[in-house]
Amino acid sequence: MAGTDTSIRQIPDNTPLAPVIVLVRPQLGENIGMCARAMLNCGVTELRLVAPRDGWPNPDAVASASGAGILFDSAKVYATTAEAVADLDFVLATTARDRDMVKDVMTAEEAAREIHKRHAGRSVPVCGILFGPERSGLENDDVALADMILNIPLNPGFSSLNLAQAVLLTCYSWLSAQNPFEGTAFPPAPEENDNEAPASKGEIENLLQRLEEELDKRRFFRSPEQRPTLLRNIRNFFFRSGMTKQETRTLHGIISSLVEKKRSG
Amino acid sequence: MAGTDTSIRQIPDNTPLAPVIVLVRPQLGENIGMCARAMLNCGVTELRLVAPRDGWPNPDAVASASGAGILFDSAKVYATTAEAVADLDFVLATTARDRDMVKDVMTAEEAAREIHKRHAGRSVPVCGILFGPERSGLENDDVALADMILNIPLNPGFSSLNLAQAVLLTCYSWLSAQNPFEGTAFPPAPEENDNEAPASKGEIENLLQRLEEELDKRRFFRSPEQRPTLLRNIRNFFFRSGMTKQETRTLHGIISSLVEKKRSG
Repeated sequence: MAGTDTSIRQIPDNTPLAPVIVLVRPQLGENIGMCARAMLNCGVTELRLVAPRDGWPNPDAVASASGAGILFDSAKVYATTAEAVADLDFVLATTARDRDMVKDVMTAEEAAREIHKRHAGRSVPVCGILFGPERSGLENDDVALADMILNIPLNPGFSSLNLAQAVLLTCYSWLSAQNPFEGTAFPPAPEENDNEAPASKGEIENLLQRLEEELDKRRFFRSPEQRPTLLRNIRNFFFRSGMTKQETRTLHGIISSLVEKKRSG
Repeated sequence: MAGTDTSIRQIPDNTPLAPVIVLVRPQLGENIGMCARAMLNCGVTELRLVAPRDGWPNPDAVASASGAGILFDSAKVYATTAEAVADLDFVLATTARDRDMVKDVMTAEEAAREIHKRHAGRSVPVCGILFGPERSGLENDDVALADMILNIPLNPGFSSLNLAQAVLLTCYSWLSAQNPFEGTAFPPAPEENDNEAPASKGEIENLLQRLEEELDKRRFFRSPEQRPTLLRNIRNFFFRSGMTKQETRTLHGIISSLVEKKRSG
């Protein structure tokens, strides 16, 4: 079965294909190390970092990873969250805060099942989970890139987790949903034809970049103050829409058509 | 329903009766604090300490508990593990090591179900879970007091957890088996303002009618045969997108803008 990168030798061959863990603007190297440890505990190996505050590589991270620092050999660093998720089809944002943004919420268990379903039969991950900085959590612009919110249902009177604990519970929920020791494999995904395959975040980003350019040319954004909010709302809508590859092509065609001069009428 | 000590005000009334967490000869106060935090995250409130190395109370524990130090007010300290479990009916020992001792093993999920079953209808806990010292884990004499071994099935190539993480996964497994907080940890949906309300199908239909007209004016549909299929795909995308009222207005604005002549560039 297709699986996680087993060149990392601590991962058994039958480990299911895990989601990518994306730490957005993490602050302390020590916490990055603790996250790596929590990931490897659960057989999750692909770590991406967006603009880590103290730079990268970070010796504090290696020290606190207690042997899981091996994940850092293949960890990639990105300048923006958009770049970090560009090749992914399905992205979850972990956030406890109520947001003025329309996005469905999944529990960690529901998310785990969805990820296993989307990864069945694949060899490269297409699902990722975003975790925000220790102090402030994800910003609205990060959350706008996600398909859904992932919520870990804890004691509502005391629900704040530190970063590594949030990563641990999320990864453990994923592992528990398809325990390799019990051998309960999910049915393989049907042969997907390319048209119906989900668009990658990068394909949606390209579409939105193009739309933004056209809107700028036409001064759609009346004031500089209004621009970021409106743009975020537009991005939020398209990123959560579950758009397919075919639909991005259709929308490119629609934009091309609308910006042309009328040929009749 | 009988429940956990709700005099600890961070625990909602509907919290099920949790197991007692017994830390056997814990070493660092900081770790005891982190354990308290993990417990309270999951609505678990009764902590017992067996011969804590650095004595008790311990200011390091309070500092690292981040508000969960309230559990220490009712925490009891014992000289031996046997005394700490004397009033309990069912005790689980957490240990990763293979032991030369005949004792059945339960996963954290199986243990959770067993605890919920034994606690149904009770008001005082009869189940407890033993955790050993950070460095060495439980000794055989501690394990001998338990009914069963509790095992958390992790990546066999990298399964060591720190103490607070072991407590977190164990308590979370207990909570997950009968979680009263699902859907509540996330703040309840606010009174929906009109902007976030879902668009009616009629509003989406209006938007699509308008888009269709503009596309027809520009001969977007190259052939009459192609038109119904493409239109259906476009309609399908927007109808399943979960669009809000605000988003229909934004998309109307986008169409208006795109069909205008460029004002600059």
